[in-house]
Amino acid sequence: METLVISQQEIEKTLTLNDYIDIIEKIHICHANREVYEPDLLHADVEEGEFHLKTGGLLYSGKRYYGVKLNGGFQKNKAQYDLPNILGIIYICNAANGYPLAIMDSVTISRLRTGAATAVAAKYLAPKTQIHLGVFGYGAQAEIQAKALSQVCHIGEIRISGRNPEKAKAFVQKLQSEFSIPVFYDSIENTARRSNVLVTTTPSRHYYIQKEWITPGTFIAAIGADSPGKQELEPELVASSVVVADIKKQVCRVGESQHALQRHLMSDEDIYAELGEIITARKSCPAHNRTVIYDSTGTALQDIGIGIEVYERLKQSDCHKIRLFNQ
Amino acid sequence: METLVISQQEIEKTLTLNDYIDIIEKIHICHANREVYEPDLLHADVEEGEFHLKTGGLLYSGKRYYGVKLNGGFQKNKAQYDLPNILGIIYICNAANGYPLAIMDSVTISRLRTGAATAVAAKYLAPKTQIHLGVFGYGAQAEIQAKALSQVCHIGEIRISGRNPEKAKAFVQKLQSEFSIPVFYDSIENTARRSNVLVTTTPSRHYYIQKEWITPGTFIAAIGADSPGKQELEPELVASSVVVADIKKQVCRVGESQHALQRHLMSDEDIYAELGEIITARKSCPAHNRTVIYDSTGTALQDIGIGIEVYERLKQSDCHKIRLFNQ
Repeated sequence: METLVISQQEIEKTLTLNDYIDIIEKIHICHANREVYEPDLLHADVEEGEFHLKTGGLLYSGKRYYGVKLNGGFQKNKAQYDLPNILGIIYICNAANGYPLAIMDSVTISRLRTGAATAVAAKYLAPKTQIHLGVFGYGAQAEIQAKALSQVCHIGEIRISGRNPEKAKAFVQKLQSEFSIPVFYDSIENTARRSNVLVTTTPSRHYYIQKEWITPGTFIAAIGADSPGKQELEPELVASSVVVADIKKQVCRVGESQHALQRHLMSDEDIYAELGEIITARKSCPAHNRTVIYDSTGTALQDIGIGIEVYERLKQSDCHKIRLFNQ
Repeated sequence: METLVISQQEIEKTLTLNDYIDIIEKIHICHANREVYEPDLLHADVEEGEFHLKTGGLLYSGKRYYGVKLNGGFQKNKAQYDLPNILGIIYICNAANGYPLAIMDSVTISRLRTGAATAVAAKYLAPKTQIHLGVFGYGAQAEIQAKALSQVCHIGEIRISGRNPEKAKAFVQKLQSEFSIPVFYDSIENTARRSNVLVTTTPSRHYYIQKEWITPGTFIAAIGADSPGKQELEPELVASSVVVADIKKQVCRVGESQHALQRHLMSDEDIYAELGEIITARKSCPAHNRTVIYDSTGTALQDIGIGIEVYERLKQSDCHKIRLFNQ
């Protein structure tokens, strides 16, 4: 037996964005069915950045897998070394005997799985009418969110907004070249008022979207808040909306919901559902006139599930294989 | 830039047992000099076994590294699948930007580093006279402990003991074929009474070595106890001896010292020193007539430090290299 060593390039050739969406849906079904080893995490700060370790496992296509994502986050990497700001590996092993099945690059998977999760949430929770999409932020994640949503929604136009209009306008140019529908810059308030699907992808630590700007029935994917202190939405907006979490326990601690909870505007039990409960119809989709927030914090199970699928698809291929230990 | 993928075979060709001893000494000096990123760990139980993650980093030969050891522990692996019972990978990256430098097998390193640490401790703490070695247990670790000690001590004879005399006698045969000095089976009490260096390597959860059997001046390497509940020495023996820890915080929680502490026979401050403090002479070696216990729990820094050295030695070699992400 051998261990697969899989590069970013091979991963990109193996999975389309639509594949990610299908796999993420399957992973959240596993989670709702409790066919998982509970995710856990570790964090360490170093001088120029940080390391994140996420662990967990899945019963996936009838087999038990355990895995780890080990990512470094170094905000100056691109500028200083021409390296990705977030980089590392995903490790997949057999949960029945620890056998190392695959080691793969984590860069693309880390980027795409978050967009794919939003697309899965939107498939069930976004308005069924034509979508006016509002995107806050102008980084790699903003782009992937727009692309993933375009796979599952009928988008008519895209507004881009953010605190730095210059950067937002540059991002409009970039995105326009990839979409055949109108992409344009608008103010934060206008974007919030005139969109029926909103995606917030900024690293903000104070909310910039007010409750009164939001039309009831809007679907909001709250992506940016994934650690203590990060915030994009007015807590009153969160408390008055239907909140769907990727993982309840996690969003209460590090997601957009943390702030409404801390201010006692809602309690843990007010989180309506986890995404997997919506997909498996354990919880029904909210009424059309309710604003729905998908509180997305990212889960180890998403990374590991994608890693498992990459392993399954490539195990018969001619990609790098190495006999790690003597047998 | 590329990432090295290093097999067990390549590691075995690269480092001798003496190399391990030298490197482990260097690592404990780094630790005493606070040139480390603090070790941390995660644990997950699965149906047939468990997963351990250990993280930490070192300033090693002037460069900053961060690493992770991901090991599975599956007690039936050998019998059921002809796989190692403990298996996994060590991952080494650049602590300044997260770049993945190397991924390597963990099997040999996990086995040898514990023996090497005992040898380093014995170099400073064992009697300088001829050694009568007593080994409790008959697994892979018992063998490595004896071999590592033979690199730094002048051993005259080896007694093997344990709760299962049949297994102990079989192990005597195996060890005798590798040593030119007498190796023989003896009872637990005789072995304890007649040896001046003892190594305890069993998975016992109740002590089997009594205080009154031990001649003052004996050096005891307490290897087995590395998780809550594991115990090999009478707590009164621990409390009345000079205890040297690999990492103080760790031995208080999971080492042999946990039991003497729980029974209030000693306090945290009674742990005399960490191994690195002895090596760097921040703490003097205890008097010859004092019994010294090296309380060994194993540290991520040992695994990661060995991994760094393997990477440094092989980075110019023709071992497997892969371009993990697009650059």
